Amino acid sequence: MASGEEVSNQQIILKNYVTGFPKETDMEVVSSSIKLKVPEGSNSILVKNLYLSCDPSLRVRMRKPENLGYFVGFTPGSCHTRTETFRKITCTDVPLSYYTGFLGMNGLTAYAAFFEVCSPKKGEYVYVSAAFGTVGQLVGQFAKLMGCYVAGSKEKVDLLKTKFGFDDAFNYKEEEDLASTLKRYFPEGIDIYFENVGGVMLDAVLLNMRLHGRIAVCGMISQYNRAKLEGVNNLFYLLTKRILMRGFFVLDYGHLYPQFLETTIKHLTEGKIVYVEDVVEGLEKAPSALVGIFQGHSVGRKVVLLARD
Amino acid sequence: MASGEEVSNQQIILKNYVTGFPKETDMEVVSSSIKLKVPEGSNSILVKNLYLSCDPSLRVRMRKPENLGYFVGFTPGSCHTRTETFRKITCTDVPLSYYTGFLGMNGLTAYAAFFEVCSPKKGEYVYVSAAFGTVGQLVGQFAKLMGCYVAGSKEKVDLLKTKFGFDDAFNYKEEEDLASTLKRYFPEGIDIYFENVGGVMLDAVLLNMRLHGRIAVCGMISQYNRAKLEGVNNLFYLLTKRILMRGFFVLDYGHLYPQFLETTIKHLTEGKIVYVEDVVEGLEKAPSALVGIFQGHSVGRKVVLLARD
Repeated sequence: MASGEEVSNQQIILKNYVTGFPKETDMEVVSSSIKLKVPEGSNSILVKNLYLSCDPSLRVRMRKPENLGYFVGFTPGSCHTRTETFRKITCTDVPLSYYTGFLGMNGLTAYAAFFEVCSPKKGEYVYVSAAFGTVGQLVGQFAKLMGCYVAGSKEKVDLLKTKFGFDDAFNYKEEEDLASTLKRYFPEGIDIYFENVGGVMLDAVLLNMRLHGRIAVCGMISQYNRAKLEGVNNLFYLLTKRILMRGFFVLDYGHLYPQFLETTIKHLTEGKIVYVEDVVEGLEKAPSALVGIFQGHSVGRKVVLLARD
Repeated sequence: MASGEEVSNQQIILKNYVTGFPKETDMEVVSSSIKLKVPEGSNSILVKNLYLSCDPSLRVRMRKPENLGYFVGFTPGSCHTRTETFRKITCTDVPLSYYTGFLGMNGLTAYAAFFEVCSPKKGEYVYVSAAFGTVGQLVGQFAKLMGCYVAGSKEKVDLLKTKFGFDDAFNYKEEEDLASTLKRYFPEGIDIYFENVGGVMLDAVLLNMRLHGRIAVCGMISQYNRAKLEGVNNLFYLLTKRILMRGFFVLDYGHLYPQFLETTIKHLTEGKIVYVEDVVEGLEKAPSALVGIFQGHSVGRKVVLLARD
């Protein structure tokens, strides 16, 4: 398309702040037109979106803005205009969609939080909640490459074991007493907990942590849809077991991105790390795709394909 | 007294596991006799106790033993026989009683947890709960020596400010909404929280922490007397504010003891650090002294004087 040409531009707009689980009707598809032109003499860039990714943390930004640190709420009806954090992709030997999660912020989260916060050692016991998410998949595989024992929780137990090489896995929805379940899967206790869930899961984990355990808090998906945060009762074990717990935000570790990218693409091309995506096609499917991840519908990373090139 | 002589030996014995607040009747004073003699050829030592100290963490050991990490419950009716951790006191220029707390485990807790876990920087905002305890007193004074702003909570507001040089202090018992109180005392937020309390206090603190804040968990006095641990709702802020929270146990930092002792005795003799004790005399007063610290009766460290030399 020629520069300056006016083209139609479809958008998904957040209509209202969301309470509880997001619904498709919280978003709407609107069409406008856009001129393929940046302001004269500016450093702006005009972007054609090829892929969108559905990330659980988007939910936090769909609620009324509060003092939540880095999770700044969206302003309903407005567009996201911050472009200063854009990166140019140099390695195109892997599917471009991978950069929306696996080779993007989620991948770097897994890498930096696991190696920098959890300080893993060979033979340690690693528990990954929400193990089927992009971050969880990768943490489990990094942990296996380190020689750790890894178990995860998520609906897709078989895939975690056969596809991602987890030592064991259980479906937390089928378990009545998470603390006993964890005791069964980790009779020696847990050295490293990769926290993506929060709430009752965290409580059960605290009971099962070993002395000097480490907990990287990378997400608390169980809390995102709640108006009121859930209580965690077992924090006393932080004290008695000398546990380290650290909230993690990937942008603090941006300097590790080149090293992460090199390592991970190498593992990927050698087949030592695998990645599963669940791709739907068409922007109009984005609301249902995003809503679906909170209902546990996706098998692997949910990606919306907008255009092939 | 000559070696081999038989002398009377008074003891305070824990009668039963304690539930709720400890009462004087949970302990009893018994008398027995002891021969002033160690087994032939052994490395044992015979000790004459001069001082006992009343430490809130003793409460944890008075409840039924559970998997609480290093807090091993006492066995009612039995004596404590582990002597391998005894240290000989070399510097006697300061009152010997100081070694039961200020120059002992509590002091090292304050020193190591503050400098090693909290990584303080000049100008940072430090909040100390249970600030009038041995640990709290010292942390506040170390923080002032570092050039931090320090506020603490405890009943004895004036003493915290005039005696220990805290910038500010409030009585948490007079405050209805701790989160708003902390907002008033720390309008810029809290960089370092020295956690001795737990429960609702921790919840209020989490709301008021700054980005990249640090929380050293050294005690949770509000939880020791509870049969069921209290829920903490605001852990989500660990994530959004990238907070580090670490359970601390002093014996992990034993290697810092010589350096701590040298620094602290120097500050003490130069008058840069002060210490307040609340001494009662006679072993028979030990149960009421210990019970009293949970009722907020003591002004400074509660010490039981048994013998002057």
